[in-house]
Amino acid sequence: MHVRSLLTTTASVLALGGFLVAASVNSAAAADKRVNWKMGSAFGSKLTQLGTLGVSLSEKVQRISGGNIRLKFFEPNALVPPLEMFDAISAGSLDAAWSTSGYWVGKNEAFAMFSAVPFGPSAGEYGAWIYYGGGKELMDELYAPHGIKSITCGVIAPEASGWFRKEITSTEDLKGLKMRFFGLGAKVMEKMGVSTQLLAGGDIFPALERGSIDATEFSMPAIDLNLGFYQVAKHYYFPGWHQQSTLFELMMNREKWDALSDLQKAQIETACGDNFREGMLEGEAIQFKALQELQSKGVTIHRWDPAVLDELRAAWNEVANDLSASNPDFKKVWASLSEFRENYKIWKDLGYLN
Amino acid sequence: MHVRSLLTTTASVLALGGFLVAASVNSAAAADKRVNWKMGSAFGSKLTQLGTLGVSLSEKVQRISGGNIRLKFFEPNALVPPLEMFDAISAGSLDAAWSTSGYWVGKNEAFAMFSAVPFGPSAGEYGAWIYYGGGKELMDELYAPHGIKSITCGVIAPEASGWFRKEITSTEDLKGLKMRFFGLGAKVMEKMGVSTQLLAGGDIFPALERGSIDATEFSMPAIDLNLGFYQVAKHYYFPGWHQQSTLFELMMNREKWDALSDLQKAQIETACGDNFREGMLEGEAIQFKALQELQSKGVTIHRWDPAVLDELRAAWNEVANDLSASNPDFKKVWASLSEFRENYKIWKDLGYLN
Repeated sequence: MHVRSLLTTTASVLALGGFLVAASVNSAAAADKRVNWKMGSAFGSKLTQLGTLGVSLSEKVQRISGGNIRLKFFEPNALVPPLEMFDAISAGSLDAAWSTSGYWVGKNEAFAMFSAVPFGPSAGEYGAWIYYGGGKELMDELYAPHGIKSITCGVIAPEASGWFRKEITSTEDLKGLKMRFFGLGAKVMEKMGVSTQLLAGGDIFPALERGSIDATEFSMPAIDLNLGFYQVAKHYYFPGWHQQSTLFELMMNREKWDALSDLQKAQIETACGDNFREGMLEGEAIQFKALQELQSKGVTIHRWDPAVLDELRAAWNEVANDLSASNPDFKKVWASLSEFRENYKIWKDLGYLN
Repeated sequence: MHVRSLLTTTASVLALGGFLVAASVNSAAAADKRVNWKMGSAFGSKLTQLGTLGVSLSEKVQRISGGNIRLKFFEPNALVPPLEMFDAISAGSLDAAWSTSGYWVGKNEAFAMFSAVPFGPSAGEYGAWIYYGGGKELMDELYAPHGIKSITCGVIAPEASGWFRKEITSTEDLKGLKMRFFGLGAKVMEKMGVSTQLLAGGDIFPALERGSIDATEFSMPAIDLNLGFYQVAKHYYFPGWHQQSTLFELMMNREKWDALSDLQKAQIETACGDNFREGMLEGEAIQFKALQELQSKGVTIHRWDPAVLDELRAAWNEVANDLSASNPDFKKVWASLSEFRENYKIWKDLGYLN
């Protein structure tokens, strides 16, 4: 806009006495410094939900702020490698990141609790704890010493339990397998005698193809389909006990967050709230088509025998107890989530048809 | 703001060359006419979730628009009686309303399908159909001829099935009862030999106390507790098969909606999306305390015998078939929702732990 037209706009505002209040509001907005942040992403922009929700966040914030806030989405590694984003934001060399807190277990295992919990809650219950049950306050407490403000900003559908070359009929069959596995669930699989490793999404297919791993989990049907695992492993197991829902976060340098106006903070928080809705509802809508397509490609879909799930659950309880014994932060967060879930069960068992 | 300070602000913007882009953005916002709408509500502002979510919507929109959009919440009847809001918005004499589309069955029974469906989906599945499964397009189609734009703008937790003075052990015990009942579920109860009537929230307790009704449903534990039904009826039944989730809407005069800028539309839509998240997650978080309190007051909490639920479900299928036969709009929406649910079941049965 040229200076001339800006003056014209101002003059016309002045000419219309009735618009003085509106002008006042907008000049308050004008007092907000424009935010032009770089947002690194832990997931590629084309990856269903994992990445697309980050792009969606960026667009929403820009749209509802009338362009005042820009969170420019950068592909993984374009700014810094994903696992280095935590330190970069902490130091202020990166403004923000689209991520999931399970990546920061190297800093503190308690971060995993704001990402995905084995045999944990599904999206509604998890979100209830985060927003209304004390979760977000604990999350804030954990990030604050690192100079980071992190807001829950999305959720995705339950994952599948994994892809196996051979049918698994008991936990005996798991022993000795080499499997790609993420997060706290990997510790559970280790207890079952599985040798786990963490591979990035793009490295899984070749590893599976050449046999350097026997099995893998990655994500939900709509994503797994695109990664082509069905071409090598024909047995697909459910439910994904290790990630019944996975929360995503917008991480920001804390000083930069604190410097935002109330209007800007509200716009970011509301966009993140709508992103939670989007992730949850879109995630529910897109799985069945992928499942049908996988079946048409000759994949055998299994549901774990309840006895297998019971053994895995027992192993997870051991892992959680071990972590609680060694990490007071983990202990505190685990106690909060466990207490919430115990109470929630009263309602869950009564309120729902099945 | 006085003219002098407005000029000063403008001058300082001009002085800072670097802010010209920001000024451009904000003068674009300034070009948006301020929206100052009256929003009638079907529910009192103090009513947990039913009303408080409407207040929350109003606050959110104001906050993220920097005060540019005001949806002023008016208590039921303050502008027009709730059931007359539809016609008032259609005529343009009312700008907007906070409501649930089940109120408009007198206009067309198909409206009920965007509000609550007996034996219908819970919030995640329902929202998936609305936002990503064709629901909102059908909703738009149904409202458009009335000159109304309605956006799904919230959801609440499952309701309880109802309060009874006497224990109900089979559907035989329902025969001849006089019961307050809302929406499509009332038609199901009629098939069971129940004589139903619709009473407003405040009229239920006195009717129950003086015995002019034998039983009532109203809402979820956190709301029912406050209305005091436990003082008269001691048997509280679950699950609320008639409303496993209930959607709320922001209705607007369509011409007024069309006249909004893209920025204003985005702000309203995003606030409504966040309101869906809020309703869903808050609803999950607040029931167990209410249930514990009700138990401490001597209420006996029951879960319906599966045989009773099967009979009710069969009756609902009859009702849905009758409505489909008599109302082509209902038939179309019911077919869309039913097809979505059939597909979703593939995923639901696999993806979740229980």
